[in-house]
Amino acid sequence: MARIGVVGLGTMGAALALNIADSGFDVAVYNRSEGATNDLMAGAGGLAERLIPAKTLEELVAAIEPPRSILIMVKAGDPVDSVIASLTPLLDKGDLIIDGGNADFNDTRRRTEALTSEGLGYLGVGVSGGEEGARHGPSIMVGGTEETYRGIEDIIEAIAAKFKGAPCAAWLGPDGAGHFVKTVHNGIEYADMQFIAEVYGLLRAEGRPLDKMAKMFAEWNGGPLHSYLIEITAEILAAADKDTGKPVVDVILDQAGQKGTGRWTVIAALKLGQSATAIESAVAARSWSADKAAREAAEAAYPNAKVALSTLLDTDLELALLGARIIGYGQGFALLGAASEAFDWNLDLQKIAEIWRAGCIIRSSLLDEIMMAADEGLPHGQLILSPVIQPHLKEAVPALRRVTAAAVQAGVPVPAFAAALSYFDTFRRGRGTADLIQAQRDFFGRHGFERVDREGTDFHGPWAG
Amino acid sequence: MARIGVVGLGTMGAALALNIADSGFDVAVYNRSEGATNDLMAGAGGLAERLIPAKTLEELVAAIEPPRSILIMVKAGDPVDSVIASLTPLLDKGDLIIDGGNADFNDTRRRTEALTSEGLGYLGVGVSGGEEGARHGPSIMVGGTEETYRGIEDIIEAIAAKFKGAPCAAWLGPDGAGHFVKTVHNGIEYADMQFIAEVYGLLRAEGRPLDKMAKMFAEWNGGPLHSYLIEITAEILAAADKDTGKPVVDVILDQAGQKGTGRWTVIAALKLGQSATAIESAVAARSWSADKAAREAAEAAYPNAKVALSTLLDTDLELALLGARIIGYGQGFALLGAASEAFDWNLDLQKIAEIWRAGCIIRSSLLDEIMMAADEGLPHGQLILSPVIQPHLKEAVPALRRVTAAAVQAGVPVPAFAAALSYFDTFRRGRGTADLIQAQRDFFGRHGFERVDREGTDFHGPWAG
Repeated sequence: MARIGVVGLGTMGAALALNIADSGFDVAVYNRSEGATNDLMAGAGGLAERLIPAKTLEELVAAIEPPRSILIMVKAGDPVDSVIASLTPLLDKGDLIIDGGNADFNDTRRRTEALTSEGLGYLGVGVSGGEEGARHGPSIMVGGTEETYRGIEDIIEAIAAKFKGAPCAAWLGPDGAGHFVKTVHNGIEYADMQFIAEVYGLLRAEGRPLDKMAKMFAEWNGGPLHSYLIEITAEILAAADKDTGKPVVDVILDQAGQKGTGRWTVIAALKLGQSATAIESAVAARSWSADKAAREAAEAAYPNAKVALSTLLDTDLELALLGARIIGYGQGFALLGAASEAFDWNLDLQKIAEIWRAGCIIRSSLLDEIMMAADEGLPHGQLILSPVIQPHLKEAVPALRRVTAAAVQAGVPVPAFAAALSYFDTFRRGRGTADLIQAQRDFFGRHGFERVDREGTDFHGPWAG
Repeated sequence: MARIGVVGLGTMGAALALNIADSGFDVAVYNRSEGATNDLMAGAGGLAERLIPAKTLEELVAAIEPPRSILIMVKAGDPVDSVIASLTPLLDKGDLIIDGGNADFNDTRRRTEALTSEGLGYLGVGVSGGEEGARHGPSIMVGGTEETYRGIEDIIEAIAAKFKGAPCAAWLGPDGAGHFVKTVHNGIEYADMQFIAEVYGLLRAEGRPLDKMAKMFAEWNGGPLHSYLIEITAEILAAADKDTGKPVVDVILDQAGQKGTGRWTVIAALKLGQSATAIESAVAARSWSADKAAREAAEAAYPNAKVALSTLLDTDLELALLGARIIGYGQGFALLGAASEAFDWNLDLQKIAEIWRAGCIIRSSLLDEIMMAADEGLPHGQLILSPVIQPHLKEAVPALRRVTAAAVQAGVPVPAFAAALSYFDTFRRGRGTADLIQAQRDFFGRHGFERVDREGTDFHGPWAG
């Protein structure tokens, strides 16, 4: 009998099934189309003996020891509901369904309520690390009841990435908490990828050869920017296309796809009255990349003047990237704090930073300091106000400012750098400019305003009749 | 008997009821709490004879000639559903409910379907112009069936603002089309208010006296920036607080409120795969304004170096504002085009620009040119690519660039300027940087990429096993 079942044997599902088997657990596996099951078995090598292939969901359920745990790894959205609908009639009270995909946390909240009311367990689990992580150790963010989690904690901890021996997996809070944290993780990932792409764009505009860029990213990976995304960027920039021998980035179409988690992060932020603008700008950059014909027409209409970027210093680029990254994380953590409050999740921000240190796509040495910062508590929920973080920003922001100004002057787009800096500069103004906006709203809509010199919310300007 | 009824006599409902009466139609009026009805009657003067006050919804319905038309002017969301639920049992087939509030267009789509299936008419109508507009002539954006609209077209056109004699009201498309267009109108309004606030912030950082600022805005209102928002900004900056005699902007707390339409615009854009980043940044600026304590702490942690903005030219500020405004409209119109396609609304962009020219908050002389641009057709759906608009942007963007760069260097936040410029500069690159992002996604997630040199979507880099 298997200890757990896996439904959905795509890239992530197959890799997780192998990881579970490799960790010493017997796994029943099922895929709607049998080909994926056969491929998995054929490629499993010695692990095949721990895998029990099932041709139907009934077979799968029968192969798992009760109380059963079944991990669903299918496309987010309707397919998850469809698998749940097919599974539940086959299960007994006390059995557990785990959604390990990138679910919208609102769906997870809804499903948790529906299934727990039927006596089934439900966990919404964020899994980060791509295929490699899923196979050899992802970062795992669990949402649901803590008691439910304890029933499969041994498997989760066994398959998770380890940071200095400690598993990068944790129960984070009820219902949608795990999937929400994973969504914000992906939002931070979007921002970080866009920051890196902006540096790449600047270097390309400057005419820097790709091999020099690759070397620079590789060097940066030995410093405060040390992280998985910087590491793979160095490898990518140095890589040649298998077919043509050209640099691989030169054969890839500049149209980026997205699967929704970046967008979900931004929408969740907006609904919580937050604005994660660095993440927003990264989502925007991907959207706009799709409009290649419009971009080509715009380039013809508004040709770039050839402006030298010779004022750009490599050390400034490194620091700018660090400053932007800190602000991107800061927006993500502010959002986690706001959601925790809104949904009463009591999220442990330190624990979240801790389990992001290995296995996941945004793992970086910066997370050690974010852990320290979260441990001390974030003033006003703002990472940028943490005494641990302040010295880094004080060093990095002037460079971010120089790089952004140079890019703006040269006409090279740096939407995420500019958004990060705008966030920082907006917060750095004790008195902002919303007084004018309040006045305008009162002028045309009688919305009323608050005053600096007395209590109350419904004052009006002299324009009111 | 009244020709129409109005439910909800707040600022906008009362003003619209008076406007309808003033246009020669008898109006039955009802408010849940009777005080507002009494206030309206008491202040109506000679128009009171055209107003029929009702104490209950039953009385209201009985006072309207069939087929009845009833305009609901209550808070968006649940209150609208609640009024509809109370009204429908009192109505006959063929009667018409009109929601004139700022509804989420998704709600309007849902309500249209529900009510038309019961044989009632339903129109979702965007009304812009604030209290003054509602009373003396708003811009009116109608969604629903065209046939239904014809039944009340005479009232709508009578109460609407007139631009050179032509009513600023139109049927725009089915179900949620009117409310969607109004939402985007408000999104553009958010962006435009934020652009103006950023210029105000720059001038304040520079130490410009308020009376000089007021004079400058008043002068700008005589040029290409001619618009309602510039006009009232000049008045606001010159206005003194009634109680203290101080400049009114100096007594207003710098925390801006929002009611949701800006946020809805951004969320709608994201769901349509669009990104209206200038609007997003305006929504963000309002959100962040609420965190005054955090801003004060950040100012203490990261004091502003006193950097002179003496390089700022007034003519540059004027042009920068014009360039940003065009880009803000451009993002709004791109969003209208995308929604029109997604929901099969067949929106007439020229008509929309036409009815925004008077009555509404974003009325501006720029709309004449946007009308011309829409008439010619927007290349790739992009206003910034229109031959009518290009000469203006070619003149304005260099100024927007200089102002943004100066602000970035000086540490004065210009999130919406920077977002507008980032949009422009991103589109102006036929080859962007998404090739690197595609490579990263393929590296860690095996997502595959498209190539520049052949068809297909599932190519992989040399890193793939």
